[in-house]
Amino acid sequence: MTSGIKKLINSVDSCVDEALYGLVRASEGLSLLKGHRVVIRSDLDNLRGKVALLSGGGSGHEPAHGGYVGAGMLSAAVAGGVFASPPPASILAAILCLHNAGAAGVLLIVKNYTGDRLNFGLAAEQARNHGITVDMVIVADDCAFDRPSKAGRRGLCGTVLIHKLAGALAEEGCPLDQIVLKMTEVLKRIGTLGVGLSPCSVPGCLPSFDLPPGDMELGLGIHGEPGIKRSKVASADEVVKLMIDQMTNPDSQSHLPLKSGDSVVVCVNNLGALSCLEMGVVTRAAIICLENQGVVVARVMSGSFMTSLEMAGVSLTLVRANQETLRLFDARTTALAWPHLSNVCVTGCRYISDPPAMSTRPQDDSYSEGPLSHVMRKTLERVCFTLLEKQEELNSLDRAAGDGDCGNTHAQAARAIQEWLQDHRVPGCPGKLLSVLAGLVQEKMGGSSGALYSLFLTAAAGHVTEEQSSAAAWASAIHAGTEAMRRCGASACVGVLFICLWAIMCLLTKRATLGAEGTCNLTAQAGRASYIAAERLTLPDPGAVAVAATLRAVLEVLEGQK
Amino acid sequence: MTSGIKKLINSVDSCVDEALYGLVRASEGLSLLKGHRVVIRSDLDNLRGKVALLSGGGSGHEPAHGGYVGAGMLSAAVAGGVFASPPPASILAAILCLHNAGAAGVLLIVKNYTGDRLNFGLAAEQARNHGITVDMVIVADDCAFDRPSKAGRRGLCGTVLIHKLAGALAEEGCPLDQIVLKMTEVLKRIGTLGVGLSPCSVPGCLPSFDLPPGDMELGLGIHGEPGIKRSKVASADEVVKLMIDQMTNPDSQSHLPLKSGDSVVVCVNNLGALSCLEMGVVTRAAIICLENQGVVVARVMSGSFMTSLEMAGVSLTLVRANQETLRLFDARTTALAWPHLSNVCVTGCRYISDPPAMSTRPQDDSYSEGPLSHVMRKTLERVCFTLLEKQEELNSLDRAAGDGDCGNTHAQAARAIQEWLQDHRVPGCPGKLLSVLAGLVQEKMGGSSGALYSLFLTAAAGHVTEEQSSAAAWASAIHAGTEAMRRCGASACVGVLFICLWAIMCLLTKRATLGAEGTCNLTAQAGRASYIAAERLTLPDPGAVAVAATLRAVLEVLEGQK
Repeated sequence: MTSGIKKLINSVDSCVDEALYGLVRASEGLSLLKGHRVVIRSDLDNLRGKVALLSGGGSGHEPAHGGYVGAGMLSAAVAGGVFASPPPASILAAILCLHNAGAAGVLLIVKNYTGDRLNFGLAAEQARNHGITVDMVIVADDCAFDRPSKAGRRGLCGTVLIHKLAGALAEEGCPLDQIVLKMTEVLKRIGTLGVGLSPCSVPGCLPSFDLPPGDMELGLGIHGEPGIKRSKVASADEVVKLMIDQMTNPDSQSHLPLKSGDSVVVCVNNLGALSCLEMGVVTRAAIICLENQGVVVARVMSGSFMTSLEMAGVSLTLVRANQETLRLFDARTTALAWPHLSNVCVTGCRYISDPPAMSTRPQDDSYSEGPLSHVMRKTLERVCFTLLEKQEELNSLDRAAGDGDCGNTHAQAARAIQEWLQDHRVPGCPGKLLSVLAGLVQEKMGGSSGALYSLFLTAAAGHVTEEQSSAAAWASAIHAGTEAMRRCGASACVGVLFICLWAIMCLLTKRATLGAEGTCNLTAQAGRASYIAAERLTLPDPGAVAVAATLRAVLEVLEGQK
Repeated sequence: MTSGIKKLINSVDSCVDEALYGLVRASEGLSLLKGHRVVIRSDLDNLRGKVALLSGGGSGHEPAHGGYVGAGMLSAAVAGGVFASPPPASILAAILCLHNAGAAGVLLIVKNYTGDRLNFGLAAEQARNHGITVDMVIVADDCAFDRPSKAGRRGLCGTVLIHKLAGALAEEGCPLDQIVLKMTEVLKRIGTLGVGLSPCSVPGCLPSFDLPPGDMELGLGIHGEPGIKRSKVASADEVVKLMIDQMTNPDSQSHLPLKSGDSVVVCVNNLGALSCLEMGVVTRAAIICLENQGVVVARVMSGSFMTSLEMAGVSLTLVRANQETLRLFDARTTALAWPHLSNVCVTGCRYISDPPAMSTRPQDDSYSEGPLSHVMRKTLERVCFTLLEKQEELNSLDRAAGDGDCGNTHAQAARAIQEWLQDHRVPGCPGKLLSVLAGLVQEKMGGSSGALYSLFLTAAAGHVTEEQSSAAAWASAIHAGTEAMRRCGASACVGVLFICLWAIMCLLTKRATLGAEGTCNLTAQAGRASYIAAERLTLPDPGAVAVAATLRAVLEVLEGQK
């Protein structure tokens, strides 16, 4: 491979043909025209008597244009090299194929670039010399320049919308001259503007231009041609507002006239490497910005439609839409790259549902105290005190292995329990207490630790009640808790919590005789939890140390009860 | 905004909510659950009596999971922060919503990450405490590690396939336990492996890891967790072979058993910032690599399905497919991010069409000489000689304004015409000659110049024949040529070619009196072509100089004929 930015290709020379092969093989409805870079519908018979649509241009804009070949959109697409216009011979071959299939004329949809206009124009002349009815629509939707150059406005992502609208007309049986007339009218209602946060690079080449990280360029062409303005990357809302203002500024010769009350179709187009997350943010910004101006957002499409290789950036295309525009936009197509879209007006469509009325912390506030309430309160107070005392020690242990916040996390839980104890009675039902604690640690502790404690406590809670708190019931509860943890893949933690809960069980069942021999047995069972007896600072798992400290606090209270 | 890689967002804190808003507003079928990051079907009534499907996880993997909500896939999706597991309270709220809508149980589809397993597991326990039937499927499809860690294989893009297959079963009315059983079985037949060419960065943060440009890492997790091997970026074919070999290596505990004759569904997943062109190349490589091993490629999907923000990379997911797998895969879904797909077996599907039999250079070989043949040959010889003589001069002029190959381009055309003259008679019909020249320059000269000359000659050719070569006929021909150029936006060049063709016209109509006064008239008409008389090296347009040289050669021959 020649020098340049490293890409996942086999060679600079083969990448276009291989990408077309990949596209066509992945779709039953497409074929490659032998000897040409032409993607053509496999079901050419269905073109008989209808106008055929042909588009194309340089490669590097995928899924344009091959991805738009299918019933209801293009009949065929011709690809050139990366960012290079396709040769007239291939364009002519495609036209001849469509003509031979019985098409009632061929419409060429061409982006306004000199090379494309010349090569498609030449093929059209040659086709006419063969007696074929051919016409051409030039898409020039760029809104970047207030005073466009002599070459006119550039052709950008609006082309895809023309594919769709003209394709739907052709599918309906509309004659060629009518389609040309209607598209000429639609073209006055389409505008596009792009913004780039990075350049892109043609395979084998260095980046097409320099753009310092953190800068953006407004109004770029889809081959990285210069835009109109460079600045620091602003917020998504500001960038979108800037774009829509430029696109609709009446002082610009290339503006799209748009006023309050107008309906628009919006296409938010990923130029290549913008993350889908950012695409969502920009889509929101576009909808809100337009609605704030009183514009009715009739349809929105968001995704990669006309890319510039791996350019991190986005373009907005607006089509001022009437009823016919929407009918054609909504019409069915089998083209691979046309997305599933809603056919309901975006503005005014309900998009918020009410959450369930049911509390997520069940029966939080309906319980009474019982004989065990006092000792359980005392135990909890001691546990909280211990965890707060050990906050820095746990953080320090965690810094060796994790993100150093284990002590903080446990201190959060301890403070949450302390606050709760101030305002609440402690329920006499041990299961109820476990539920309350589950809710508290889930909500206030957060992270994996919170979920882990909460999971155990939640699964265990249902198995012990005020009436049913025998050792057997506690054994079931512990089993349910550890099973829930095991199902969630937290097997390493099971031993530790098993010990901890066993101790609580002893406390609550007043088997207050747990001494050296009990600890010993449990230690043997739990394996990884054997460090409980010797609380060394070199222990690897700060979470386990926290559990050990909790257990020690419980045991201390327990010892005091004897 | 905090420091970190600059992104097109409004703030680190708001980007997830805003991206969800963007997704949901763009689709009529989706709603947001108020107070939660939950995307849920708007048509919850349609869930009555069917199993509901809930998935989710950290954000940054868009379109996962919100994009897969719709009939035939997920009933709802819960999003966490970027790369952070969603809170159990939101998961529970979603479960309760689906339950309240009358769903016959809720299936949680969870990627095998500790946080997700815990949080979904906790919500499941809480839902069970509410008396709701809930079950969970853990997707662990990563094939990276020969000996997976205790946490097991990671959950990757295979999750999307489980959404699809389980979603189709639920839509068919399959009960919860059966869906779990079938998915448990399918999970043994799914494998995924990723490769990254760049890191990604969580909003507000620096890149998740360092990877030198030109290097790649095999087996990354979707949050940028370490893979198994780093190397220089190899060719796409080699990388894909490496991936499939690793995925199917029987010595690895996490391999996908695959043998010749097996059928597979292939998902080629863009991790974020790979260009669509590269995606096509990788898709081709995957199909060919599998077919070379005798595997039947039943279906292929290629696109962005489970991304890692803006990571440049790709993952391959293979599902060993039986008839039921394909039926469920092909079933209809309204989910926004599920692509239009073919339901025909890829392997064995015809994908090459024959080009049209018609020659693209019409009636090339059927003509006879005539009275004008001799002078036309002599003129062409002189033109070719002149253009070759001026090759370096034209290149030098072009270096100032263009890419410095104007002389080479014209020399190519000249040599092509010389070669043609050696082997061919010159037709007596001037239109025929123009056609031949049009074909030659289009094929051999290439670029915009070739297209431009060819366009003029092609459009003009039809208007002059051996019988009809009067001045009026030539005027029509010139008009047709210039009109064709004007239609293609080449108005600046029209003047020059007008001069040139006028001279040829004079030659061919034997109005061999074109002298100073003729040139003078034409110069006045043509404006920009006024430099013809004074062939200065400082002229700005080397193409125009080439045309001027051509014209001078024609005139010299013409003068010699007097």
